[in-house]
Amino acid sequence: MSQPVGKLAILGLGLIGGSLAAALRARGAVSDVVGWGRRETSLRKGLDAGVIDRFTLQLADAVDGADMVVIATPTLVAEALLGDVLGLVEPGAVVTDVASVKGNLARAAAGQPGGTPANLVLAHPIAGSEMSGVEAADPDLFVAHRVILTPESSTDPRALAQVRAMWEVTGAEVVEMGVDEHDRILAATSHLPHMLAYTLVDLLAQSDRCDEIFRFAAGGFRDFTRIASSDAVMWRDIALANSTLITAMLDAFGSHLAGLRTAVAAGDGDAILALFERARRAREGFVEPGRSNGKRGEE
Amino acid sequence: MSQPVGKLAILGLGLIGGSLAAALRARGAVSDVVGWGRRETSLRKGLDAGVIDRFTLQLADAVDGADMVVIATPTLVAEALLGDVLGLVEPGAVVTDVASVKGNLARAAAGQPGGTPANLVLAHPIAGSEMSGVEAADPDLFVAHRVILTPESSTDPRALAQVRAMWEVTGAEVVEMGVDEHDRILAATSHLPHMLAYTLVDLLAQSDRCDEIFRFAAGGFRDFTRIASSDAVMWRDIALANSTLITAMLDAFGSHLAGLRTAVAAGDGDAILALFERARRAREGFVEPGRSNGKRGEE
Repeated sequence: MSQPVGKLAILGLGLIGGSLAAALRARGAVSDVVGWGRRETSLRKGLDAGVIDRFTLQLADAVDGADMVVIATPTLVAEALLGDVLGLVEPGAVVTDVASVKGNLARAAAGQPGGTPANLVLAHPIAGSEMSGVEAADPDLFVAHRVILTPESSTDPRALAQVRAMWEVTGAEVVEMGVDEHDRILAATSHLPHMLAYTLVDLLAQSDRCDEIFRFAAGGFRDFTRIASSDAVMWRDIALANSTLITAMLDAFGSHLAGLRTAVAAGDGDAILALFERARRAREGFVEPGRSNGKRGEE
Repeated sequence: MSQPVGKLAILGLGLIGGSLAAALRARGAVSDVVGWGRRETSLRKGLDAGVIDRFTLQLADAVDGADMVVIATPTLVAEALLGDVLGLVEPGAVVTDVASVKGNLARAAAGQPGGTPANLVLAHPIAGSEMSGVEAADPDLFVAHRVILTPESSTDPRALAQVRAMWEVTGAEVVEMGVDEHDRILAATSHLPHMLAYTLVDLLAQSDRCDEIFRFAAGGFRDFTRIASSDAVMWRDIALANSTLITAMLDAFGSHLAGLRTAVAAGDGDAILALFERARRAREGFVEPGRSNGKRGEE
């Protein structure tokens, strides 16, 4: 498919927005890419790196004439922008996003005059990297990664097909599910682990002996806490946007952890072993099925 | 230093014991390595791989004539073996271990006839890998990794120097600290994260939709839960051996997580952001100081 996207506007030029632009340009799938943001710094970097063709600080300029508008800001900024963007785009233009929570955007969309717009397709590429910012943009970031679309019954099938085609060009595997299902799954596999990692590192950092504690941290700790190096504003937004489901996951986790705490305090080796074995089997079965012999050594 | 170790007995030939033997052989620091275990399988693999010179299923044979005896079994097996080993070794032989908890072994040592033996030096190499078992033995596993020794006032300085020299030959950085300090630090940086990772995976595995949940897990989840693929028996032993300090860490973590839960449920963005920012800065400052720009992108 040649130029399935046409003229593209990226609102918020960070790692994800920049990588999407770079991916589409690298594959000749886009004729023109304009970047919009609140500050010139990232936009200029994107321009210098060849990720975008041009940039503007005026939202109306950015969406003017665009065939596809991608909101790639943090979650709550996306929610705040949505109405303005939907009001500014030309008839026939498709609006989509890349945020990690879909419920708040779906509610904001439903609150538009006329209800949820047919040209809006909410989307979430499940991809990231060790870096953030447009300087880390990678045209292959989405290859073999999943992108979840959460269309509504009112969504224009043509708009849905265009967003799907855009992501398929990047090499991603596109799937569709409901907004609530998306937010529940991400609360479990992404939002909850981030809450746990941030909490652990903050707890240890408050220790009198945090110097010493961190000095003796091994590779397992670095892996476990890597996500606590994530952008704090982005994750505050996610925590607020998906607060109901995240709170429910925190409660479920707290109860399950209390069960293990009881077993450890009581010296109940059978209960501890049963939990560890179930977890190990589940992880090897579901998360890394190719690594059935992959057990981590002692630390 | 040529052959600083002499004749070596490895009791329990897994990843750590096998890697220690391989490291010392590769550097010509040992004249003879005998392996002991309860089953022939691992021992034969170690022999075939050239990790050990010979093996035996008889403990008395294994320690007979050894200059250095390394107990490299899981934690509770090490505790159970300690008295027998100390009773069997020749005068002048040094006994050490590699277990992740030191308090239970120190208490077992103090309970020996005559109190804590002068020839016992408890040790813990902070190293591991994705694999377990002697087939994953790696002569460079300990290079640039820390090994913690926890000598007592009664420890023979000569025995301490021999254990230190052995580990320095492998390329490790050797440090000394008290038994309690070791167990507190490891409870925070290693034992608690393992409890959290096992609990998270087990919680998600119990969901009706665990198939779907795990299918949409991204790289962050795989990193975060990698330690939940660890050997379950080894970690049950650690949970039991260090249960008091692990229980205390679980309580502290539970309280801290409850604070975040309150902030998320209340939509208190400032409190959430403050915690995330503190954690991010602490991790970048202490855990990976070379990666000050290393922020993880959105997932």
